[in-house]
Amino acid sequence: MSEEQPHANLAVPAFKTEKEPITQTRNGQSSVWRFGGSDKAAKASTVTLRGVIYMLFDNCGKDVNKTILPLGHGDPSVYPCFRTCIEAEDAVVDVLRSGKGNSYGPGAGILPARRAVADYMNRDLPHKLTPEDIFLTAGCNQGIEIVFESLARPNANILLPRPGFPHYDARAAYSGLEVRKFDLLPEKEWEIDLEGIEAIADENTVAMVVINPNNPCGNVYSHDHLKKVAETARKLGIMVISDEVYDRTIFGDNPFVSMGKFASIVPVLTLAGISKGWVVPGWKIGWIALNDPEGVFETTKVLQSIKQNLDVTPDPATIIQAALPAILEKADKNFFAKKNKILKHNVDLVCDRLKDIPCVVCPKKPESCTYLLTKLELSLMDNIKDDIDFCVKLAREENLVFLPGDALGLKNWMRITIGVEAHMLEDALERLKGFCTRHAKKTETETESLQALKLSDNNLEM
Amino acid sequence: MSEEQPHANLAVPAFKTEKEPITQTRNGQSSVWRFGGSDKAAKASTVTLRGVIYMLFDNCGKDVNKTILPLGHGDPSVYPCFRTCIEAEDAVVDVLRSGKGNSYGPGAGILPARRAVADYMNRDLPHKLTPEDIFLTAGCNQGIEIVFESLARPNANILLPRPGFPHYDARAAYSGLEVRKFDLLPEKEWEIDLEGIEAIADENTVAMVVINPNNPCGNVYSHDHLKKVAETARKLGIMVISDEVYDRTIFGDNPFVSMGKFASIVPVLTLAGISKGWVVPGWKIGWIALNDPEGVFETTKVLQSIKQNLDVTPDPATIIQAALPAILEKADKNFFAKKNKILKHNVDLVCDRLKDIPCVVCPKKPESCTYLLTKLELSLMDNIKDDIDFCVKLAREENLVFLPGDALGLKNWMRITIGVEAHMLEDALERLKGFCTRHAKKTETETESLQALKLSDNNLEM
Repeated sequence: MSEEQPHANLAVPAFKTEKEPITQTRNGQSSVWRFGGSDKAAKASTVTLRGVIYMLFDNCGKDVNKTILPLGHGDPSVYPCFRTCIEAEDAVVDVLRSGKGNSYGPGAGILPARRAVADYMNRDLPHKLTPEDIFLTAGCNQGIEIVFESLARPNANILLPRPGFPHYDARAAYSGLEVRKFDLLPEKEWEIDLEGIEAIADENTVAMVVINPNNPCGNVYSHDHLKKVAETARKLGIMVISDEVYDRTIFGDNPFVSMGKFASIVPVLTLAGISKGWVVPGWKIGWIALNDPEGVFETTKVLQSIKQNLDVTPDPATIIQAALPAILEKADKNFFAKKNKILKHNVDLVCDRLKDIPCVVCPKKPESCTYLLTKLELSLMDNIKDDIDFCVKLAREENLVFLPGDALGLKNWMRITIGVEAHMLEDALERLKGFCTRHAKKTETETESLQALKLSDNNLEM
Repeated sequence: MSEEQPHANLAVPAFKTEKEPITQTRNGQSSVWRFGGSDKAAKASTVTLRGVIYMLFDNCGKDVNKTILPLGHGDPSVYPCFRTCIEAEDAVVDVLRSGKGNSYGPGAGILPARRAVADYMNRDLPHKLTPEDIFLTAGCNQGIEIVFESLARPNANILLPRPGFPHYDARAAYSGLEVRKFDLLPEKEWEIDLEGIEAIADENTVAMVVINPNNPCGNVYSHDHLKKVAETARKLGIMVISDEVYDRTIFGDNPFVSMGKFASIVPVLTLAGISKGWVVPGWKIGWIALNDPEGVFETTKVLQSIKQNLDVTPDPATIIQAALPAILEKADKNFFAKKNKILKHNVDLVCDRLKDIPCVVCPKKPESCTYLLTKLELSLMDNIKDDIDFCVKLAREENLVFLPGDALGLKNWMRITIGVEAHMLEDALERLKGFCTRHAKKTETETESLQALKLSDNNLEM
């Protein structure tokens, strides 16, 4: 973790230095081992973004005289301008120095932390949560794991948004839940295609996932739209899983509305945490909140299953749990304002530069989250097959890594991470412009003069 | 986490304040919800110790004018005398203050931490580990989870010790691995019944678990015995999973030998961590080490499956990962010596007091770990059906909680936690003596005089 390698945790593929497989057996004798690796996690692990990102890093050109710009994955925490607030650091240090966060906690989390989360969420909710409605998880991703394991049954299916967050696909595959995708509509500011939902749901559908503020689209859903979502879910008899990890990462005009507001219409299970808001994904703490004034999760035994799953899975570190009340209560509002101002500046910068790059279009300026989704106008380009081809060639020629939309379910789109330092985006957009200019489809006149040039080159060489 | 409740994390059952189930539906209308809780974790969650401990706490007598003594579960970290060393606290504080531990890490763990673990383990190993042989986990229990998920396949079975650590049973149930138990032999200082292993293994057996130093028996296996274990496993074609979390908690004469020493005989997967040695289970970090000079884990794809599972499960907090090198390298030897001296003193104290309690016998004085296993001589007692009955009545009459051996697979044994403050053990043994005296089978003379007494009492009452 030296000063020279601020991104060491991420920019280097995890298994780069892997040893070569050794296939011979001891002393050349054949020996029979009765064990073997399960392939249960094989599918799940391939749909995570890590694989795509590492593939693109591998494609970066060693002969390209430019630093690698890692704008494919999102982890602002490695950049000093997004460093978490001092109050959060102090909270954990205080617990460490007290010696009171070293012990095991209960599976659901320690009570003071559950109470603090309930208080934090209740600011925005009409149906107040109690500490017993809150379950702490080792990051939000574990929340997905716990909930999916609690809902899985033979033939059950779950509705996920397209584009979406691939960890949902990964954990659904792991839990044996069939995935059905509904669309987010770019022409309607990424609203959920509610008619599409009714078309794909059936009697085996158990839940739909709403990500709000939306990752990766960057929109914030309106009160009215969320109410319609709740009514649709109730009509279908399914619960809503509302992923609200970006609730403190908003820099547009639309206010955030928690899905829990509509819990009297449909039971809502909220997933949230401090990873994004406080920019500390490495602290690994999140929570599940059950917005359920009717007690449906109890009668349907979802609550019981969540508790049982929490009893046999890893807990978040007790030192972070014990610090959570102070983290939630004491964080300076200026910290969030400053963070969101940087993101807003970065979004404006990218959108401004994209005006000069006709083949990369941003149809809706994001107002939350740390990404910017762009549509690739491949018809304006020569010899670029699709978004993956675009991103591979971009990595190879410019040492610039963006995420192909294909990884999120959006063919021929591309995701640009804006949770980085502004100068990186300036550099990246300059490289992108150069790349797109080189690969732009030539007009007829241009093609002719290019051919003439090539002919004269050939003449020279002969 | 106030000063007044040092054991708040543990002594209070997690779901004590649970709301009453609400069974009516909204506005009295019946409504059909298509989702329901899975029972996949139901069996797994019942075999953890938490359930038994909470049941005993519930049995403690509110009218008994004695504080509750929680000696059923083991978490020394809540007692000031077992507080972790300042070097470990400093290591985490330094990372927090550097801002370098806030980001996501790779699924296998960050490289400096993996390297530090390899160096730490290599002190005792002839076949040196590289950082690529080490995988960080969110506590040792997650190590069990990852390994079992990686080994599970239809009809596979795994060999576990009896008595053992119930989390193995829980995770085997969760992963669908059939459990077969082999005995640890009290008459042979808790050595493994190797003949028994050969009798229960078959072509579907994939692994055996060795816990060394042993939880809960408190013995440390000899070099010769471990070598025989390795040879038996090789003969059967199964791998050895060696749980070495108590490698820094030894206070007897037998030296600790790591199972990895025998990796040229059989592939050994070691599970370890800092939870027990450094007394920080709430920091949630452990590791899997692959002792495998022949590359068997690679050819059998166990390695690949472990990596895939790590990619889709929670990582240990990056702040702890980043602190791990300093924690492992800088810890003061005096810290371990002091901790083990207290445990040795506690063991001597309990064994001494047990001399006066004929119905509770310790056949082998522990030399490691934080428990003391005792055999109940129920034939010397009146109206005590079994170990559970013994522990329930002990909780009810004396507010003293010990763990019934049944929870560990040893009917009519009992486990006493010695990782507590000495004065608690003094108090506990006094109460135990009183309880056993009251419930001791009366000799003929005693019975007669008791009856005479009762008759005279009756006379008085009439």
